Amino acid sequence: MSATHTNGTAAANPDRKVTLVDTTLRDGMSSVSHQFTTENVAAIAAGLDRAGIPTIEVAHGIGLGASSIQYGFAAATDPEYVRAAVGAVENADIAALYVPGIATLNELQGAIDAGIKTVRVAVHCTEADCAQQPVEWAKDKGLTVMTFLMMSHKLAPEPLAEQAAKLDSYGADVVYVVDSAGAMVPQQAGARVAALRSAIGADIGFHAHNNLGVGIANALTAAENGATFIDGSLRGLGASAGNAQTEVLAAAFERAGWHTGVDLFPLIDTAEHVVAPLMKEPQIVDETALVLGYAGVYSTFFHPTKRAAKKFGISTREILLELGRRGVIGGQEDMIIDVASELAGRTYETPAVASV
Amino acid sequence: MSATHTNGTAAANPDRKVTLVDTTLRDGMSSVSHQFTTENVAAIAAGLDRAGIPTIEVAHGIGLGASSIQYGFAAATDPEYVRAAVGAVENADIAALYVPGIATLNELQGAIDAGIKTVRVAVHCTEADCAQQPVEWAKDKGLTVMTFLMMSHKLAPEPLAEQAAKLDSYGADVVYVVDSAGAMVPQQAGARVAALRSAIGADIGFHAHNNLGVGIANALTAAENGATFIDGSLRGLGASAGNAQTEVLAAAFERAGWHTGVDLFPLIDTAEHVVAPLMKEPQIVDETALVLGYAGVYSTFFHPTKRAAKKFGISTREILLELGRRGVIGGQEDMIIDVASELAGRTYETPAVASV
Repeated sequence: MSATHTNGTAAANPDRKVTLVDTTLRDGMSSVSHQFTTENVAAIAAGLDRAGIPTIEVAHGIGLGASSIQYGFAAATDPEYVRAAVGAVENADIAALYVPGIATLNELQGAIDAGIKTVRVAVHCTEADCAQQPVEWAKDKGLTVMTFLMMSHKLAPEPLAEQAAKLDSYGADVVYVVDSAGAMVPQQAGARVAALRSAIGADIGFHAHNNLGVGIANALTAAENGATFIDGSLRGLGASAGNAQTEVLAAAFERAGWHTGVDLFPLIDTAEHVVAPLMKEPQIVDETALVLGYAGVYSTFFHPTKRAAKKFGISTREILLELGRRGVIGGQEDMIIDVASELAGRTYETPAVASV
Repeated sequence: MSATHTNGTAAANPDRKVTLVDTTLRDGMSSVSHQFTTENVAAIAAGLDRAGIPTIEVAHGIGLGASSIQYGFAAATDPEYVRAAVGAVENADIAALYVPGIATLNELQGAIDAGIKTVRVAVHCTEADCAQQPVEWAKDKGLTVMTFLMMSHKLAPEPLAEQAAKLDSYGADVVYVVDSAGAMVPQQAGARVAALRSAIGADIGFHAHNNLGVGIANALTAAENGATFIDGSLRGLGASAGNAQTEVLAAAFERAGWHTGVDLFPLIDTAEHVVAPLMKEPQIVDETALVLGYAGVYSTFFHPTKRAAKKFGISTREILLELGRRGVIGGQEDMIIDVASELAGRTYETPAVASV
C-alpha cells in the first residue's frame, strides 16, 4: 500500500493517483444469486487482470463462509472461486471479504491456502472493535488488510473517524468508508473521507452503491478528499442498485484528471462481452433501489424485501421506509418479514425451512 | 422565471431552491423510437403533474417538426402530443423543443395553438446567433423561453458564457448548459455554470446525460454553482445512456439539502408503473453509451452508430472514437456511415430510401 500512501491530506496526493479495486466477483455475486461458476470467475478475473486492475475481490456475495440457507448457497465454495481467479491472473492480487460473525478464521485460512494475498474485513461502522482479532491475525499471516466501515452514512464524520482510528491501530493497511445503502450524496461522502484522512495514517478507500445515482460521483469526491482506493464492479454488478461501475470509474476518473493505471478498453470488453451476458437483470435505480438508498437501508435487504412485499401484497416502499425508521443494519434481515407482516396487518408463521 | 432568478451568483440562492423540468416525453422519445401514443403521453404527464413538476417537455425526440424519414416518424404529430399533455395536467406548463433548421415558426405556432406555454430553443454551443429569430419571436408571442447550448463540453467556460450572453440579450428567460454527449464530469459542469452565472442575468439551467455515470452529480454541482433549472426524465429515459433520472434527482437533491417543491412518491409511482412498462430497454451505460460520452459524441448518434457497426461488422467503439476525433456535432449523422465504411475499408453506396 505504501506506493500510494498519502500521509495525511488530499493535497498530499499531487500525482492524483488512485487504485481501482474490483468487486464484480464478490459484491456482484449478490446480483446473480451467487451462481457464477468457476469458469465465469476465471474469465472475468482474466479480463480485469488484462486491464491492469491490481486487486480483485472474489467470494460469496456476503463474504467467506456465507454460502448457506440464510444467505443463499453459492455455485462453488470460496476456495474453489479463489483458486479459479488465482489461476486466471498474471499480476492481480486476489482478495476475499471477511465479515466477523459470518466468516471464521478457519475459512480465512482456507482462502489463504487457495491463494488470496489480501483480506477485506468488514464491520458495521460503530463496531470497529469486532475487526481487531481478524485484522491482527491476518497481518500476522502477511496479508494486505483492507477494512470496511459499513453503513458509514449512519455516523457523522468525526465519530466515523474515531472508529477508523481503531482499525488503523489494529494495523489495517486501508480503511474504507463504505456506503452500503447508497445513501450518501457527494458532500457527505467527501466529508467522511476528509475526516478519516485527518485522523489516521492508513490509506483511505471508498466503496459506493448507486441508489441515489451518485456512486461514481461519490467516488470522485472521495478521491478529491484523500481516498486512494476506489471500489467498483463491471456493469455495476452488485447488491440493489449496484456498485460504481468499474469501466465508468476508469473513464470518469481519467476525464477528471486522475491516473488509475488501468486500460479502459479491456475493461469495457470484459464488461460488455463477459459480464453482461451473465447478468440476470440490469443494474438500474428502480423503486426498491431508490427507496432503499433514500431510507438508508442495507443493500442486501433488496431482494428479500421484494420477496416480502410480494408475499404480503404491500409495496417495497412501505417496508423500506419502516425499516429505515427502525434503523436496521446488516444481519437484521429477519426484521423484513416482521415489518412486512405488521404493515400487512396480519401475523406470520415462520415457514418451513424448505420454503425460505 | 423571476421567482427563482438568482441575479448573479450561487450565493444569491440562499434558499437552495431548484426547479425540476421533465423531458421524459421529449428526450425520452428517443428511447422508444418516438412511439409513445397520446394515451402514454397523457398518463405520464398526469403523473408528473401530480408530483408537482412545473414544466413538462413534450414532442418528437429531436423536437418540433422532426418526425421524418431522417429522424424517425413519431406515433403522433407534435400538436397531438401537446394536446394530450395539456389535457392531462392541472398545473404544469407544457413545453416543446425547437431546433432551428429542423423546426419552423409555423410548427411552433402549431404547438402554441395546441397549448404550449414554454418553448425551449436549442442550438449548438457555438451558434447562439441561430436562436435570435425564434427566441425573439417566441417572447413576442408571450411564451416563456428556455434556451439550450448543446454540446457545451466543446467550449471552455468563458467562450460558452459569451454565447450565453447572446441568448440573454435576445430575451431568453433561462439559458441551459446542455451536456448533450454526457461528456462532462462535475467540475467541468460546475465551471461552465459558474461562468454563465457571472456573465448573464437570465436564469441558468443544466441538462445532463449519464454516459460517464455522473448525470445526477453534474446536476447537483450545477445547482451549487448557480443553476436553478434542472432537467431530468423518469427512469432516465433519453438518448444513449439517458438523462438524469427525475425521481432520483428529487431524492438526491433533497438529501443534499435542496428544495425542489416536488413530491417524490408520485414521481416514483409514475416511473415504476407507467414509464418502466413502456421501455424497450433499460437506460444503462453499455460500451456504446460509455464510449460516446468518453469521445464526446452527440447522444443521438447512439442508435445509428449501433446500426452502422452491425452493418459493417466493426465495433461501435471504433466508429465513435473516430467521430470524436473529427469533432462531429448534431446534424452530421451522415458522417456515421462515412466513417464506418472507411474503417471497414470498403466503399458504401447510399441505400434506397426504403432501407434506411
